[in-house]
Amino acid sequence: MNKAIVLLSGGMDSSTALSIAIKEGFECYALTLDYGQRHRDEINSAKNIVKDFKITEHKLVSIDLTVFGGSALTDKNIKVPEQASSGIPITYVPARNTIFFSLALAWAEVIEADAIFSGVNAIDYSGYPDCRPEYISAIQELFNLATKITSEGKSIEVCAPLINMDKKEIIKIGIENGVDFSKTVSCYQLDQHGKSCGLCDSCRIRSKAFEELNLEDNIEYV
Amino acid sequence: MNKAIVLLSGGMDSSTALSIAIKEGFECYALTLDYGQRHRDEINSAKNIVKDFKITEHKLVSIDLTVFGGSALTDKNIKVPEQASSGIPITYVPARNTIFFSLALAWAEVIEADAIFSGVNAIDYSGYPDCRPEYISAIQELFNLATKITSEGKSIEVCAPLINMDKKEIIKIGIENGVDFSKTVSCYQLDQHGKSCGLCDSCRIRSKAFEELNLEDNIEYV
Repeated sequence: MNKAIVLLSGGMDSSTALSIAIKEGFECYALTLDYGQRHRDEINSAKNIVKDFKITEHKLVSIDLTVFGGSALTDKNIKVPEQASSGIPITYVPARNTIFFSLALAWAEVIEADAIFSGVNAIDYSGYPDCRPEYISAIQELFNLATKITSEGKSIEVCAPLINMDKKEIIKIGIENGVDFSKTVSCYQLDQHGKSCGLCDSCRIRSKAFEELNLEDNIEYV
Repeated sequence: MNKAIVLLSGGMDSSTALSIAIKEGFECYALTLDYGQRHRDEINSAKNIVKDFKITEHKLVSIDLTVFGGSALTDKNIKVPEQASSGIPITYVPARNTIFFSLALAWAEVIEADAIFSGVNAIDYSGYPDCRPEYISAIQELFNLATKITSEGKSIEVCAPLINMDKKEIIKIGIENGVDFSKTVSCYQLDQHGKSCGLCDSCRIRSKAFEELNLEDNIEYV
């Protein structure tokens, strides 16, 4: 059975990516990062989501990105925008995906995994540079050289199965594969009762997709 | 004044890389990683070394790589080899440089740095895949795409000024630039008094270079 590391944030995309890795027959190892994110509730979501799938191990690893800041998600003094704007929004976290992929690579090398799955996608998204197809290609090129096992010829494939899907497709495939979206967290600024704001980029992209699909979004909004 | 992040382990190579960045006129920000390494004494070395140079900030960031293990440096059950062997030795830490570079990238983006300096080199080294020139080129390609600022056209140059130097050249340039090598740590398994073993790969490469240069290596060996 081929092994895969799955980067699992606790959001809709990574949960769907996990369900795809499972469906494709991979033995799955889920990796969740506690990076000091404003919406730390997503870590509990990740812990809940893995219960619905047969995975071999779920690791939670801490890397405090608030020491660098530079994002509304890692610096409490920067407000989460509640309206759409042009350009890459301030919720972008500097180098986040590069850091997460590199940690996944470490684990992948140790267990000799065949793939690393990520839920990144570049259609209904916030324009983050580290979610684009050309970024994924560059990560793959790097990983082919970066480790003992890949430099000796083993392949560790970087899989971004959602890269060209819009949010509606992601929801449809997730549901087909058994993802319980009511367990996922999208909001960047949940209130103290775990309710979503409905206003941030991430909430807006989520709600719009559920609405257009005529599906109930079974999470609580403020 | 251009800004540089300098990855500083506390060893000879990264200290020399720092001295080069200073000499080249960069405003330097040193980044040291506490990754659960067996030879954590090197962190104190890093703290001592920066005192000899005018740097703007020194950050110590923790990322526990013992959760993945897979190396004699991050798994206490794996012995440090005390004889040369063929191939990549077990002191290689899976994906270490990729993780370190990606953390440096995060800081580089936040302060809009122009360069990231690393002491990697591929002549008198242990054959680690993530120290080779082709690896550095791939990191550069990735970083050009990976961040908001680089995707908008700013350059963050990955600088590996020692890449083609042997250990003797590194020592000569370091001395010229004011590196106090007695403060650096090379040994992978210092004893409880901070004495170097003289047997591990890293000690052997170091001692041989000092010997061939007819220079005193002013650190204590067991």
